[in-house]
Amino acid sequence: MSQNVYDDPDFFAAYAGLDRSVEGLDAAFEWPAMRALLPPVAGRRIVDLGCGFGWFCRWATEQGAASVLGLDLSERMLERAVRDTDDERITYRRADIASPELPEGAFDLAYSSLALHYLPQVDDVLVDVRRALVPGGVLVASVEHPVHTAPSSPGFVTHPQGRPVWQLDSYFRPGPRTTDWLAPGVVKHHRTVAGYVGALLRAGFTLTALEEWSPSDDWVAEHPDWAPEQERPLFLLLSAVVGRVAA
Amino acid sequence: MSQNVYDDPDFFAAYAGLDRSVEGLDAAFEWPAMRALLPPVAGRRIVDLGCGFGWFCRWATEQGAASVLGLDLSERMLERAVRDTDDERITYRRADIASPELPEGAFDLAYSSLALHYLPQVDDVLVDVRRALVPGGVLVASVEHPVHTAPSSPGFVTHPQGRPVWQLDSYFRPGPRTTDWLAPGVVKHHRTVAGYVGALLRAGFTLTALEEWSPSDDWVAEHPDWAPEQERPLFLLLSAVVGRVAA
Repeated sequence: MSQNVYDDPDFFAAYAGLDRSVEGLDAAFEWPAMRALLPPVAGRRIVDLGCGFGWFCRWATEQGAASVLGLDLSERMLERAVRDTDDERITYRRADIASPELPEGAFDLAYSSLALHYLPQVDDVLVDVRRALVPGGVLVASVEHPVHTAPSSPGFVTHPQGRPVWQLDSYFRPGPRTTDWLAPGVVKHHRTVAGYVGALLRAGFTLTALEEWSPSDDWVAEHPDWAPEQERPLFLLLSAVVGRVAA
Repeated sequence: MSQNVYDDPDFFAAYAGLDRSVEGLDAAFEWPAMRALLPPVAGRRIVDLGCGFGWFCRWATEQGAASVLGLDLSERMLERAVRDTDDERITYRRADIASPELPEGAFDLAYSSLALHYLPQVDDVLVDVRRALVPGGVLVASVEHPVHTAPSSPGFVTHPQGRPVWQLDSYFRPGPRTTDWLAPGVVKHHRTVAGYVGALLRAGFTLTALEEWSPSDDWVAEHPDWAPEQERPLFLLLSAVVGRVAA
């Protein structure tokens, strides 16, 4: 069972106040990079693993998606998602995405934004997702970058030469990391870049893109306190397709 | 033109004294991981990009390779490679692997150990290598891990809690990094993990493995001064095949 921190009242209140929660995808700074990885969604059957407030589900149907199934563990988030949604192509279901129990071959696209790093393991999840996709089906997912999740005591320090440096350790120690992000005691699960990529390949996906993301210069010009984030990767973005290589 | 630091007398003397230079592959701690990525080499036509003293070339012919072409920029290394080799299946050629000028479709396997991070760019190189391979041909390569090459002032510091931490910055600033490894002024070229993977995919390869490597617990038990290396990835190992995905 995954931790359900999003139903913690303090966490929920803080998360609901983030720009991305109030204003949606356009306020999520990595959204342009995620969108660039998406295949056309018109006419597609989509599952969103960790749908939160349903912003992506609604965007996808606005783009002509045939159907969207949004899964999330948080009752509070789903309540708001349902309240904010008026489209019968979208279905929300409360589920632990660690065992999504999806029907086989029922989807053309699986989408997951910043959710998989909450799961203790992703191997079985990715096998389930691959089975739930048709041949040629696509997975697009973002996670907190392993360089970001690894440290035993995450943080920047100022190098003697004046530049912020990220204190990296414990990269090869997969497992839980407890941080105080929005609320105390939030548990994320660290695994390496190779851990994510290996799980995808073992599940029967072929990797089609791997991107590492940090805020752009434009973003940092407007939000100078984000400058240290440019020193190391913040998110890992992956896209993959169901299928094997033909020479 | 790549820097030819291996022909610098001081660098060469230091490099020639490393265990891996004296004792060969079995003294290269990442060799078991590289070997695990290799397809069977018996009967295969192989090119080794950055062959150094020719240890891999000789190993491959001992395993039954049909032919091995070893390329290196260093005259000094090739001189010793030729001196140490007595097998007409092996050919050494002095070449800058930044522009290897290989014949099309002439090889089944391309191998490159800790060489590509000396190149200012890898996009064109990987296109050349892909063209030099037959359909279904395989590339196996190791490079210094981008987390290792990124920092403006690389080094570990001791965290207040006592653990060594790697000071990571400049991850998204690709380009040359001058370090004093074995000799002063050695220039390596940093690019991100996404940079390497993207170059492979754009060149027409499909990724078949991505591994991140650091010394094992056994190694560190015998060489305690290597313990900090376990805190962050040291090498990036990639294997890829020529071909596109079939659903």
